[in-house]
Amino acid sequence: MEKIFTNIAENAKISSKKIAVLTTKLKNKALLNIADSIEQNKDRIFDANKLDLKEAEELVRSGEINQSTYNRLKLDENKMRDMIQGVRDIASLEDPVGKILLKRELDEGLVLTKISCPIGVLGIIFEARPDVITQVSALAIKSSNAVIMKGGRESSNTNKMIMSVIQEALSKTEGFPENVLNQVFTREDVAEMLKQDKYIDLIIPRGGNKLVKFIKENTKIPVLGHADGICHIYVDEFADIEKAKKIIIDAKTQYPSACNSVETVLVHKNINDKEIISALQDAGIEVIFNPESWHKEYGDKKLSFKIVGSLDEAIEHINEFSSGHTESIITENEDNARKFMQAVDSAGVYHNVSTRFADGFRYGFGAEVGISTNKTHARGPVGLEGLTIYKYTIEGNGHIVKDYAEGVKSFHHRDI
Amino acid sequence: MEKIFTNIAENAKISSKKIAVLTTKLKNKALLNIADSIEQNKDRIFDANKLDLKEAEELVRSGEINQSTYNRLKLDENKMRDMIQGVRDIASLEDPVGKILLKRELDEGLVLTKISCPIGVLGIIFEARPDVITQVSALAIKSSNAVIMKGGRESSNTNKMIMSVIQEALSKTEGFPENVLNQVFTREDVAEMLKQDKYIDLIIPRGGNKLVKFIKENTKIPVLGHADGICHIYVDEFADIEKAKKIIIDAKTQYPSACNSVETVLVHKNINDKEIISALQDAGIEVIFNPESWHKEYGDKKLSFKIVGSLDEAIEHINEFSSGHTESIITENEDNARKFMQAVDSAGVYHNVSTRFADGFRYGFGAEVGISTNKTHARGPVGLEGLTIYKYTIEGNGHIVKDYAEGVKSFHHRDI
Repeated sequence: MEKIFTNIAENAKISSKKIAVLTTKLKNKALLNIADSIEQNKDRIFDANKLDLKEAEELVRSGEINQSTYNRLKLDENKMRDMIQGVRDIASLEDPVGKILLKRELDEGLVLTKISCPIGVLGIIFEARPDVITQVSALAIKSSNAVIMKGGRESSNTNKMIMSVIQEALSKTEGFPENVLNQVFTREDVAEMLKQDKYIDLIIPRGGNKLVKFIKENTKIPVLGHADGICHIYVDEFADIEKAKKIIIDAKTQYPSACNSVETVLVHKNINDKEIISALQDAGIEVIFNPESWHKEYGDKKLSFKIVGSLDEAIEHINEFSSGHTESIITENEDNARKFMQAVDSAGVYHNVSTRFADGFRYGFGAEVGISTNKTHARGPVGLEGLTIYKYTIEGNGHIVKDYAEGVKSFHHRDI
Repeated sequence: MEKIFTNIAENAKISSKKIAVLTTKLKNKALLNIADSIEQNKDRIFDANKLDLKEAEELVRSGEINQSTYNRLKLDENKMRDMIQGVRDIASLEDPVGKILLKRELDEGLVLTKISCPIGVLGIIFEARPDVITQVSALAIKSSNAVIMKGGRESSNTNKMIMSVIQEALSKTEGFPENVLNQVFTREDVAEMLKQDKYIDLIIPRGGNKLVKFIKENTKIPVLGHADGICHIYVDEFADIEKAKKIIIDAKTQYPSACNSVETVLVHKNINDKEIISALQDAGIEVIFNPESWHKEYGDKKLSFKIVGSLDEAIEHINEFSSGHTESIITENEDNARKFMQAVDSAGVYHNVSTRFADGFRYGFGAEVGISTNKTHARGPVGLEGLTIYKYTIEGNGHIVKDYAEGVKSFHHRDI
């Protein structure tokens, strides 16, 4: 097994150098071919999905997986249509590679350029959602990265079929290199993936808290993602209470198990907390006043509730207990809003809106590979840009450093 | 010891939230106060440096440190002047924090902003160069990060004195928070630093290969830097030989122990390699034709030499053996230059110039905290920008996701 995985990783590295130099036109051609191929073969994919669903029904019955995992696993016409449209949308996005980020004449005839380029090989680990495989494949191609994917075992039939349809489309795309998209299937493969820092440049886990924590603790490769989503809403002294109620209810009930759902509500002592509490309870939310831990992520229609004495106390509480995902202040006071947004150290800091807006599609990124709570590389929803890095080029004509060290020449550093 | 270090790290984290919200004006004031204070106290610093030098003389005699370490340790009037000017230069640079990187109206009255912000707490480990402490302090302040520094033990008297002069200046700067700059001294402190992923967000080692490798292998905290500097120059079939000779000699002899010195020269088979070899030998360079390993970093006036059959072979060799630092192609053929610069996967890829240009000052970044060969976060010379990340803010007026999920409202994603 080890040898096989190393081969996959090594080949992915080789192919990453090839996809790095593909034209935008060829990458988009490949994406459109993938979309067409999925469309033409959707019945084969539905059939494979039925196999997975049949097995999953047993697992639901035996309690090994829950109904919501089953629902995520299920492909229907709507999901299929979105999946295909998603690939076409990524084809229509701007190429994130080859963008000039800085151009500076260092001296006469000596030009520095900072230019965006792919990262190399991505390792993406996700749970049972077969639509992820198409999205990740499309994002990898558009950003000129090779990728090794490991999906949830519950969706392995669907994943295999989708990948085979995608590979068919790529093999028909003249000039598209082999081994850009790779799929592995076992836990042992994941263990191997985490060791291959020679070949893999970035790991992106998409899944539950346990999966992400396990990965972060077991690899030297940079990991982009988030383990927890402990989001806060602070109802300021100068809040519009109606707005507060509406936003909290949305942030908790619109999709309670999402990472951007609110988990803790902080309310200023001068606000009528009774009114807020009864509105939340009317909306079916369980309000917990003395939670065991302020680090609690409920993933359900429950939230922790606390009265705070001041804006500063709210900021301090959030900076201590937040997972750094997304927080929102509800206030009509612009100064308080500004202070909150500057002082709170999270990937998303909102004013008078629901935390549920933290999402690559809602931000207009076209697609996302996940949401990062890291403090380095990419933070918040990660679209194509987060899958790139940059290199510096210098073009000159025999320029040597000695001339500058000895003062014969000097830099003028003029941005052009 | 453990407890003490944890206290330092915890206090640094607290202070990082305070410096995050300081105005540019106050940060610059602090920097100018530091520069003035060093200027006024330079004799005290020279005295402390003399203590270190005296101890170092013994170490040179007993062979524990070499002459070049001794030279780096020694502060003279020139280094002092540069050190002070360096701090003033950083004060005059643009504030990297609070820059608006994207502003987008998602829908009527719903505005997304991507804004640069500090990373948090930096851990910086460097060898015996007392001027680093001033530079790192200034970069940390300007980028609104707290920092924990561990310098080489050979310069501990100088480091302590410089830090005490800096702290004096900061305590006189009204409104400047405590515990932004922290210094530790022992190996045990470094071991503790590497464990504190709760408090430290980024580690930057500046020093030899062994130090950097040790750190990368012993921490879960992101590490920014480079272990090796195995830089290549490829003399293409269409090279101007005079240019090639001049550039290789500069890249090898101008500062042989620098990380951006060339270690391997690849020459196209149709080029007169004898002429190049004899020019290098005349310049005192030892040319090694069958090196034990193509991964060799000499740090001396030696280089590995290889004849290659084609541009592709050169690119392949570089992508396999380079440390991803900096490579240069010598050619008069624009197509070959373009191909090389696109296909070579290193932080710096040059055309007709010396690899020695890879440096933050030469790039016009004003100052650098190091050079990164990472594929994530920051690559190449890292100045102020590499010490920042960003957050997303959204400002709205009661906007909830339900309206968009149910199609009552829709996003229009208009950049403003």
